Amino acid sequence: MTPFERRTRRVQSRLTDSDADLLALSPGRSLYYLTGVDADPSDRLTLLLVPTEGDPTFVAPALEAERIAAATWVTDVRSWRDETGPAPVLDPLLADLSPARVLLADRMWAAVSLTLRERLPAASFGLASEVVTPIRRRKDEEELDALRAAAAAADATMRDVRSLGPDAVGRTEADLAEYIEERLESHGGTGIAFETIVAAGPNGADPHHTSGDRVIEAGDPVVLDFGTCVDGYVSDQTRTVVFDGDPPAAVEEVHSVVRKAQTAAVERVEPGVSTGAVDRAARSVIEAAGYGERFVHRTGHGAGLDVHEAPDVVAGGEVTLEPGMVFSVEPGIYLPDRFGVRIEDLVVVTADGAERLNRTDRGWRC
Amino acid sequence: MTPFERRTRRVQSRLTDSDADLLALSPGRSLYYLTGVDADPSDRLTLLLVPTEGDPTFVAPALEAERIAAATWVTDVRSWRDETGPAPVLDPLLADLSPARVLLADRMWAAVSLTLRERLPAASFGLASEVVTPIRRRKDEEELDALRAAAAAADATMRDVRSLGPDAVGRTEADLAEYIEERLESHGGTGIAFETIVAAGPNGADPHHTSGDRVIEAGDPVVLDFGTCVDGYVSDQTRTVVFDGDPPAAVEEVHSVVRKAQTAAVERVEPGVSTGAVDRAARSVIEAAGYGERFVHRTGHGAGLDVHEAPDVVAGGEVTLEPGMVFSVEPGIYLPDRFGVRIEDLVVVTADGAERLNRTDRGWRC
Repeated sequence: MTPFERRTRRVQSRLTDSDADLLALSPGRSLYYLTGVDADPSDRLTLLLVPTEGDPTFVAPALEAERIAAATWVTDVRSWRDETGPAPVLDPLLADLSPARVLLADRMWAAVSLTLRERLPAASFGLASEVVTPIRRRKDEEELDALRAAAAAADATMRDVRSLGPDAVGRTEADLAEYIEERLESHGGTGIAFETIVAAGPNGADPHHTSGDRVIEAGDPVVLDFGTCVDGYVSDQTRTVVFDGDPPAAVEEVHSVVRKAQTAAVERVEPGVSTGAVDRAARSVIEAAGYGERFVHRTGHGAGLDVHEAPDVVAGGEVTLEPGMVFSVEPGIYLPDRFGVRIEDLVVVTADGAERLNRTDRGWRC
Repeated sequence: MTPFERRTRRVQSRLTDSDADLLALSPGRSLYYLTGVDADPSDRLTLLLVPTEGDPTFVAPALEAERIAAATWVTDVRSWRDETGPAPVLDPLLADLSPARVLLADRMWAAVSLTLRERLPAASFGLASEVVTPIRRRKDEEELDALRAAAAAADATMRDVRSLGPDAVGRTEADLAEYIEERLESHGGTGIAFETIVAAGPNGADPHHTSGDRVIEAGDPVVLDFGTCVDGYVSDQTRTVVFDGDPPAAVEEVHSVVRKAQTAAVERVEPGVSTGAVDRAARSVIEAAGYGERFVHRTGHGAGLDVHEAPDVVAGGEVTLEPGMVFSVEPGIYLPDRFGVRIEDLVVVTADGAERLNRTDRGWRC
């Protein structure tokens, strides 16, 4: 049984326990997760229909059917042609399934969900995340392998960047971002998982700053936050470094607080603990140091096929940690017009604690 | 009145004439078209609500509200915070509007449409394209300026590529694609509108071939199909050229047929004619030459903010051409394992005919 089929069987078991009897997925990450089919949403209807029992069925445009069949363990792929539209395939299939309640992919286009609703006027509808998220947020071995490989590519890149040392001074943020993206590829990554952040000096005070014309100076704290993909799975980590010279004393102090907060949160990670407790572990260190108001975001977010997925590691978060969950731990302190510091690793919940996926030096010195 | 507001007033007038009384748009091209707000779909609810009369309202996450308000003519921007979620803003607004029928953005996520449906249990729902497409497919002057500028950047690039002449021989398709993308930027384009197609020799027989390791040879017909963006509007044109030497006689013959078909279709364009008649004009030239079976796609597609939008120029198409519509005219002949020829320009329907946006030489000789 492929990992994709295994995941589908788990989702079917959840579906059986729910009040729904059909899962309908359009192209997206969850469709990939269950089938291995990597497709973009399109005006041509592509749907995976998963009943509580038995095998799922793909409905696919003729242009795509062969490629889809070749990519997946699902054997029942029914294709439709432009001349007729999907009705001759979709209508008998839905009549046969006659679901009472359907869970739709959370990102399914309204044009698609309306098509399903018109054909199933008596059915009620909910969201696929209800049965897919509890499975997707616990990563299996294949997924952990990909996440480890993506983290290794990012770590190797971070080492390359640090080793620039004084050579980074005088380069622009955008230039350094380009270097980072080239190194990520050369270490086995595919593309970037999100826009590369190189934020020097005062730019680091904006958590969403990307990379611009600012020239890196000696003594500047520089926030470096970047990611790549391996087999569709992302990396995401952050270091805040000084490439040359010593930073102002305030930078050293804030860096030390953030580092302690990050360590405290990672140490709090184990099965049975809530996401809110992990957030609290980081936040209380920062509050105790007097910077509570300057930690303006959540402590972390799940990561996998998406760079932001379940679980959220947020104040008051009520998700209970289970082995295999993967998320970022990334406290930060942002002092407007002065500088910012963020330190981030991805961690996996293990049987009795946490495994850090990112292992490079967390200090500011290059 | 800004162009964005003017478009919104036109859409409101259509909405008044329809059986719906509220338009609900999530981030996407139509939202940009009416407001000037360029945003990505997100898990944080962002909605534009347009009633039949009066001013529209934005519902936006606090993190984005300032940026949205700065980008748009819409003055009523109501922001919600992570701590409370959107309910305190959305619920009173919907209660106040109390729509009987709502048109949803065609690509609105199910997670968003379900939120609206739960709050409006008595309402019925349709798709925004019902009232937006008839407006969007007729371009206004601001849009035509952007489309002309994008076409000019692509035309200048096509001239650069042709002027390579024999220097292109020995380069790979992928290498030439990279050169094209660099030239597009240098001529004022922003990024690429779709994956650049450089298809040499037999690769040209696949209309969807992109750009690979094949080395361009003397005598190879090479299909060049690429696009860029200016102010969000796309360019899209194709030439099939021979960089050095003479092609086989069959290439010359097929090229001549495609060129005549393209001219015949462009000459058919004027207000009052159907899209099907334009398709027929191209298709009948190709059929008469005995290649009907080898013209495997529609004659063209609308272009604007999206590279594929309304109207489709397709066999049997029933859309009546109106001034301001912009679409591609791109007949092609594809001979499997041998070669392919496609010639494409964007055209605008004018008061009494057509204006070609692309004006470079359509011959095969460089």
